[in-house]
Amino acid sequence: MTNLSGATDSDAIYASAEERARLIELLKNLLGERLHTSLPMREQHGQGEDSYGCYPPDAVAYLHSTVEVAEVVRLCNEFRVPVIPYGAGSSVEGQLLALHGGISLDLSEMNQVLEINAEDMDCRVQSGVTREYLNQELRYQGLFFPIDPGANASIGGMSATRASGTNAVRYGTMKDNVIGLTVVTPDGRIIKTGGRARKSSAGYDLTRLYVGSEGTLGIITEVHLKLHPIPGVIKAATCQFQDLASAIDTVISVMQCAIPVARIELLNHLQMQACIDYSKLEGFDPVPTLFFEFHGTESSVAEQIEMVQEIADSLGSSHFNWAETTEDRNALWTARHQAYFAALALQPGASALTTDVCVPVSHLAEAILSAEQAATDSGLTCPIVGHVGDGNFHMLILFDEDNTAQKNTAKQLSRTLVSKALEAGGTCTGEHGIGFGKKDYLLQEHGEAVELMRTLKTALDPNCIMNPGKVFD
Amino acid sequence: MTNLSGATDSDAIYASAEERARLIELLKNLLGERLHTSLPMREQHGQGEDSYGCYPPDAVAYLHSTVEVAEVVRLCNEFRVPVIPYGAGSSVEGQLLALHGGISLDLSEMNQVLEINAEDMDCRVQSGVTREYLNQELRYQGLFFPIDPGANASIGGMSATRASGTNAVRYGTMKDNVIGLTVVTPDGRIIKTGGRARKSSAGYDLTRLYVGSEGTLGIITEVHLKLHPIPGVIKAATCQFQDLASAIDTVISVMQCAIPVARIELLNHLQMQACIDYSKLEGFDPVPTLFFEFHGTESSVAEQIEMVQEIADSLGSSHFNWAETTEDRNALWTARHQAYFAALALQPGASALTTDVCVPVSHLAEAILSAEQAATDSGLTCPIVGHVGDGNFHMLILFDEDNTAQKNTAKQLSRTLVSKALEAGGTCTGEHGIGFGKKDYLLQEHGEAVELMRTLKTALDPNCIMNPGKVFD
Repeated sequence: MTNLSGATDSDAIYASAEERARLIELLKNLLGERLHTSLPMREQHGQGEDSYGCYPPDAVAYLHSTVEVAEVVRLCNEFRVPVIPYGAGSSVEGQLLALHGGISLDLSEMNQVLEINAEDMDCRVQSGVTREYLNQELRYQGLFFPIDPGANASIGGMSATRASGTNAVRYGTMKDNVIGLTVVTPDGRIIKTGGRARKSSAGYDLTRLYVGSEGTLGIITEVHLKLHPIPGVIKAATCQFQDLASAIDTVISVMQCAIPVARIELLNHLQMQACIDYSKLEGFDPVPTLFFEFHGTESSVAEQIEMVQEIADSLGSSHFNWAETTEDRNALWTARHQAYFAALALQPGASALTTDVCVPVSHLAEAILSAEQAATDSGLTCPIVGHVGDGNFHMLILFDEDNTAQKNTAKQLSRTLVSKALEAGGTCTGEHGIGFGKKDYLLQEHGEAVELMRTLKTALDPNCIMNPGKVFD
Repeated sequence: MTNLSGATDSDAIYASAEERARLIELLKNLLGERLHTSLPMREQHGQGEDSYGCYPPDAVAYLHSTVEVAEVVRLCNEFRVPVIPYGAGSSVEGQLLALHGGISLDLSEMNQVLEINAEDMDCRVQSGVTREYLNQELRYQGLFFPIDPGANASIGGMSATRASGTNAVRYGTMKDNVIGLTVVTPDGRIIKTGGRARKSSAGYDLTRLYVGSEGTLGIITEVHLKLHPIPGVIKAATCQFQDLASAIDTVISVMQCAIPVARIELLNHLQMQACIDYSKLEGFDPVPTLFFEFHGTESSVAEQIEMVQEIADSLGSSHFNWAETTEDRNALWTARHQAYFAALALQPGASALTTDVCVPVSHLAEAILSAEQAATDSGLTCPIVGHVGDGNFHMLILFDEDNTAQKNTAKQLSRTLVSKALEAGGTCTGEHGIGFGKKDYLLQEHGEAVELMRTLKTALDPNCIMNPGKVFD
């Protein structure tokens, strides 16, 4: 596919091919070898880790500073050429597709940790810094950045999609851990949205407006983050169940007792089978399983564990296992992080549609059990894994891209899950964002409020150059 | 003063006296006796608990439902008449002044708790519900709503000013505890900004845009809140110090050890003297004092206390006292809540200017010590009290309204504190909002970003009817 295949009537508002060529010439003068127009480079930047295909941008610009981003954005705005920010390329809802062509702004070389204020437990990073790199840099300060979406995503990208992951049940999401941003606005101004104070009532919360805006309101170039002390004691455990309902009931009880677990992850029997095979997990049966992690002092962790074990036992857990060593713990979380690839390996060559619903915890049992039943009825292979402490779970729907009936069944299954989540007061996306793939669901979920979002978008980006075709049309 | 005294050139954009009279006639038909035009009622609604004077609205409307609010706002928008939302009247930055006249929308009779979902620890309330009433309603469910700004404020007003208070160090601010809102937009549409899921990446974070918008972008009519389990064990303690520096160093150490204290409040010697006199606190000396509260299980509270006591002892605390009984604890927090009135009583008849700076905790000692020194140099009476766990403290600057020199000194002192806070990466307001009184500071703090806030305001409220003259001009 090329960018032309994504062309629609709305392309008329953007620059012609000749004008784009002229802009690219100007950008070449500005950036030299950091402006790329080769097809492989463009194709690499025109897709994420999803199944929405590839829509390459007209060019890829590797940028090195906020001022440079501002300069490029100002030019693109002048020429009415779309701009798509690119971090680590790990988004999963088509956020990177250059639907109307344009310039991909690759920020991966903006990878400096600019300041670490150990005493105040905060830091400021350029948005291309990845979370793993940041945690390496923080290690010697006794601090860590807890948000862990699995992929080694960039902090800028994680901010833009309001990411979360396995630790969110204890430490919150990006919304809770970003305290300020440096943003390049669609007309090329540079603004700072927050200071270093832990709280402020000074004006509108622009930080939170940009967190989760998916590149549609401006380019995040620096992120100021809240950090956390590395816990004195970290322990992991697993417990297995003969049936899914008992596993979910355990989660609900743990949450309702307000036990401050750091992670509580559910894998259904199919996902466990996939992980046992793919990650060579030993000593596990392919049955519904919970992975736990506990953070705290020796005594508080002991207290948490005792309470969780009591709940799991009372609900029929077949065995409660300790990851005694750091190695055992790492093996466990590596398997959890590889769950996506393990699931894909269940049906080699298949495409995958990932659901991301999140429901109030009291509705979790109903939501997951009915999802599993619907999956069984569909005849498709659909492992389930979830950050269930938040009420968020993913069903990976595997289908053959060339089989239209399977593809339609997969889409229908996804729609069913979303409808049920919304009925329960939940959301169509807990952490992946709307992107290209879930725009209809946003309307279904937010109704009239989407009009207000559009008003904000139009006010800030009247030429609609910022990641067009994402979040809404 | 009347609304005329607040009139400026910008009044030209609003309805004439004749048109206002016609609108008031229409509102009378709609609301009957719930539409008030008497001067006492208008004066009561044209001021908060601050020293900015009284700017009465043209009329006061007591509203009973979201639909009714929408109807009234639609009419006001049509007539170009300002709208000022009113909850409990406890704001302190002039948020309630009807600078350009208009209709005060009193929401205090929208006081229903609409749902409590004990299993998911959330609830939905009408915005006139006060925090004390809500906590009474929640008590039997074993849950509580922790945000406590001292005053018995309304939940709608607390949302609109992004309030926090003594518990924020542990439980966050309104930003962290509001999960969704029902809002009437300036053109009278009704939108919902969130569902019941604990996290979501679905579209722009309208919830956080409205939290802290101080009535300038719409009227909050319902609030969906996160709740917390009432802790099994609650203990309070105080420790006194011979000098302010040691008290502040204790706070910094406690925070840097990440001890999860629920409250940590500082009162300087002058404020302690005021509280001892006003609230008849017994057994205390008029020296710098910390008030603590600990929440958790028996063992986790014991652990927290041990760590805090060790830190305080090592920094020269003269005595560490337990509030052994619930009565003792209540007496302590009552005194803390009465601190404002106790401070006013230091100089009967004086006016007060309240500062609200918030700095990174590592800058706290410098900020408070230099504030105390500047206060001494000014010759004014300025007790200090603060939610120091967040880096937020208030200096109450007492001055004689009729003494121009004193008034100017007070303003200059406030400006000095703000400048120093901003230099340290802090904010001019941790929890009171910008309102009418801190508009210059917003510009000083956010610079170019204020233009972006204005763009949002104009896009959502093109007729500028929503609480005009607040946050920015």
